[in-house]
Amino acid sequence: AQAAFSRIERRVKEAFPGVPVRWAYTSAIIRKKLARQGKQLDSTATALAKMMDEGFTHVAVQSLHTIGGEEYHDLVGTVRAFRMMPEGIDHLQVGYPLLGTEEDLMKVTEALLENLPPQRTRQDAVVLMGHGTPHPANAFYTALMYHLQRRDPNLYVATVEGAPGIDEVTDMLRRRGITTAYLIPFMSVAGDHARNDMAGDDEDSWKNVLARAGIDAKVVLKGTAEYDNIVDIWVDHLRTVLRRFEPPAN
Amino acid sequence: AQAAFSRIERRVKEAFPGVPVRWAYTSAIIRKKLARQGKQLDSTATALAKMMDEGFTHVAVQSLHTIGGEEYHDLVGTVRAFRMMPEGIDHLQVGYPLLGTEEDLMKVTEALLENLPPQRTRQDAVVLMGHGTPHPANAFYTALMYHLQRRDPNLYVATVEGAPGIDEVTDMLRRRGITTAYLIPFMSVAGDHARNDMAGDDEDSWKNVLARAGIDAKVVLKGTAEYDNIVDIWVDHLRTVLRRFEPPAN
Amino acid sequence: AQAAFSRIERRVKEAFPGVPVRWAYTSAIIRKKLARQGKQLDSTATALAKMMDEGFTHVAVQSLHTIGGEEYHDLVGTVRAFRMMPEGIDHLQVGYPLLGTEEDLMKVTEALLENLPPQRTRQDAVVLMGHGTPHPANAFYTALMYHLQRRDPNLYVATVEGAPGIDEVTDMLRRRGITTAYLIPFMSVAGDHARNDMAGDDEDSWKNVLARAGIDAKVVLKGTAEYDNIVDIWVDHLRTVLRRFEPPAN
Amino acid sequence: AQAAFSRIERRVKEAFPGVPVRWAYTSAIIRKKLARQGKQLDSTATALAKMMDEGFTHVAVQSLHTIGGEEYHDLVGTVRAFRMMPEGIDHLQVGYPLLGTEEDLMKVTEALLENLPPQRTRQDAVVLMGHGTPHPANAFYTALMYHLQRRDPNLYVATVEGAPGIDEVTDMLRRRGITTAYLIPFMSVAGDHARNDMAGDDEDSWKNVLARAGIDAKVVLKGTAEYDNIVDIWVDHLRTVLRRFEPPAN
Repeated sequence: AQAAFSRIERRVKEAFPGVPVRWAYTSAIIRKKLARQGKQLDSTATALAKMMDEGFTHVAVQSLHTIGGEEYHDLVGTVRAFRMMPEGIDHLQVGYPLLGTEEDLMKVTEALLENLPPQRTRQDAVVLMGHGTPHPANAFYTALMYHLQRRDPNLYVATVEGAPGIDEVTDMLRRRGITTAYLIPFMSVAGDHARNDMAGDDEDSWKNVLARAGIDAKVVLKGTAEYDNIVDIWVDHLRTVLRRFEPPAN
Repeated sequence: AQAAFSRIERRVKEAFPGVPVRWAYTSAIIRKKLARQGKQLDSTATALAKMMDEGFTHVAVQSLHTIGGEEYHDLVGTVRAFRMMPEGIDHLQVGYPLLGTEEDLMKVTEALLENLPPQRTRQDAVVLMGHGTPHPANAFYTALMYHLQRRDPNLYVATVEGAPGIDEVTDMLRRRGITTAYLIPFMSVAGDHARNDMAGDDEDSWKNVLARAGIDAKVVLKGTAEYDNIVDIWVDHLRTVLRRFEPPAN
Repeated sequence: AQAAFSRIERRVKEAFPGVPVRWAYTSAIIRKKLARQGKQLDSTATALAKMMDEGFTHVAVQSLHTIGGEEYHDLVGTVRAFRMMPEGIDHLQVGYPLLGTEEDLMKVTEALLENLPPQRTRQDAVVLMGHGTPHPANAFYTALMYHLQRRDPNLYVATVEGAPGIDEVTDMLRRRGITTAYLIPFMSVAGDHARNDMAGDDEDSWKNVLARAGIDAKVVLKGTAEYDNIVDIWVDHLRTVLRRFEPPAN
Repeated sequence: AQAAFSRIERRVKEAFPGVPVRWAYTSAIIRKKLARQGKQLDSTATALAKMMDEGFTHVAVQSLHTIGGEEYHDLVGTVRAFRMMPEGIDHLQVGYPLLGTEEDLMKVTEALLENLPPQRTRQDAVVLMGHGTPHPANAFYTALMYHLQRRDPNLYVATVEGAPGIDEVTDMLRRRGITTAYLIPFMSVAGDHARNDMAGDDEDSWKNVLARAGIDAKVVLKGTAEYDNIVDIWVDHLRTVLRRFEPPAN
């Protein structure tokens, strides 16, 4: 994860030289895990409270989420609460997650196509692994699949915790007579889900589910944040927020 | 519109006998239009303020929106503000729009299939007209199209103000050699958009756009709120909220 | 009460010609009582919701409370909630109650001195009847008494529901050898409290409490809102809010 | 200041053994000053954000303010914002400042009387130095003076930044023929205001203002937080909040 975050930080600093960059981690589990390794990470609330104390007047909070699900909306809720703080940060806004607008669906589709492994042929399927969520925003995975398939009918999106699941997608692959499928994380970081749920040796890992359906799985262990063309979409959303902070030109 | 709303009110009263039902209209334009006809309609804020004054302790606000776009989020924001009122309504929650969860995408897909005109054959395309929005929630239209096409590849969703537009969908129809297409509103009410943008005689009405592409358009002027199987999905969302108001069983 | 409110409305319209004036009633009891008489009064929330619907962009809410107690803070809370409304009123602020700033304590002291009955001599005590409250703002009654006594040591403030009560003040009067005391409402309207708690025939009415202490009570049944010099202090607070709405002069 | 805060912390820990105690500093100036000395102090927002991250479910925020002025209301506003945080602290409440309720005015009056220097005679005046504020809550100083003078007519309260000022109080002393006055801080800490504005050698220090009026000033440099009987009033307010956190007894 650290390499991916360093890449993001570098791209952000290149895009907005001189703008201070801070990191906040929304996941309490990650913060606790890293605290045990001696790394103190700030939650969004703590990071914003500190910036408020330091006297920042304009803060753009850039979500690095993939879709606008529950975590993203909690982030928006945290920012909304900070907007109510007495003597708070005057201008405080959140940038969209990766899949914000309709235009993002197009851009992400293009970026994902560019990032496909060169050895993959059009006969091979590609299954992107999304996180998935019971939140309505899960529909973004399906919408993305629609856009991908308009460009290449053998591209799929399955999710770990939402719909469609890997079983449903495996059915689709079987019906189309697919024999080889690339499994690629559609998450910012290729972490536990990628290494275990997708590529692990457990009976119900995606790799093994496909194997039992007679499909040879080729695993890619790289998160979306490791690709500049994806990172630049988040950076664009940040740019949109920062532009709103600029005084109107005369 | 009034017939559709009467149907909804009837279904709600059948489902929750004894529960008082009030109407609020989020659109200022509609409220002004009807005020000129002598009908005073309440905005959401006015309706909630009055119910607060009357001493209601539990209020479920059921959105009749199709997707969770800007209007739905404004409704949620209005309710959030009312939750902060001193001496306000103790329990106040909003029910999901038609396309809330992943399950709704399935249910709406089934309902739309059931509601197709009986004379339509599998060779005829169906183009559902959604409103469309620059809000991220526009992705729900694409997600719905994905689910519809898994059941029947000649079903499409196009939108008036978002993506995909009618030109893009017309291209798809042409490429598949479609010669007849049913145009059906995917809006609660078959109002101006249906009568004019879809079925009007303007050069760029959907009917005429299809005609110029050599596709014969058959128009259906019925909103989704005129079908019980759709209305019941909204009623289910209302039920979910009302259930949260019940004391836990022992 | 109606005469007092008409006076206030007249003074406000004279001070701010052309500015629309609406009334809201914070008391649910009063609203219900008048509803039974066929008069529909708006709560603050309903009045603000309607003004929001009508498209008002600047609304000054002038409290007619005497002190900044619980009711005033509820009013502020209601306005705070309306500030969060999506598509709400852009500029929405509350004016101070009668006793807002330190300067108000001085002004109210002067006004009360001017309004004393002409036949009252310096040997006669005056007991102003405040409402009183368990809210911290009850301290304003004591602060006012301090200012009054610096001008005239025979002026007192007692409260119905807070401190000091009439028994405590009666003790003070007795110790100073007072034989005659004027009882005057320090409430906007000379309503139930004035007619019954103060001037009623009940054994524990203030009049009778004083009588038992050998003090002859002379009752004045006029609320503060019936005096222009008091009303003008509220009007000044409204002016302060309206001035904040003006564009800065160049 | 540190000694006073240690005393408070000790009293709090004695009163509520086992309850974790954290400090937050509302003043940005103090935080910056101590940061230069290498001490990192948390603002209220940062302290609450950290406690939220640590998973606290019940937090009582005890104000150590003297009156409920602007700083206290900002504290309440900060807590109100934290109540809106997604996944926030379930139970979060603020305890009253020293002068909260009417009862506090009595208790503080008694405590101040007990804390008078033993060598002071009834002929000597005592002038308590309050901070003072343009906020309406400044009235609490006057209300306190009223209660003090009912017990001992030679007790006064003057404020640095509000009313009454030292000039006004000096006039009162002169008119009563006072020749000796004790100057005592009515602030939690005997800091800059006490050492300089009150006891300094500047021409307009309170000591010198009194001297020019022929009044001999005897200075006490001890803040209210150095007296257990005052600290215990804050501790009582904290107890009130903590009691609300207890489950109702059966």
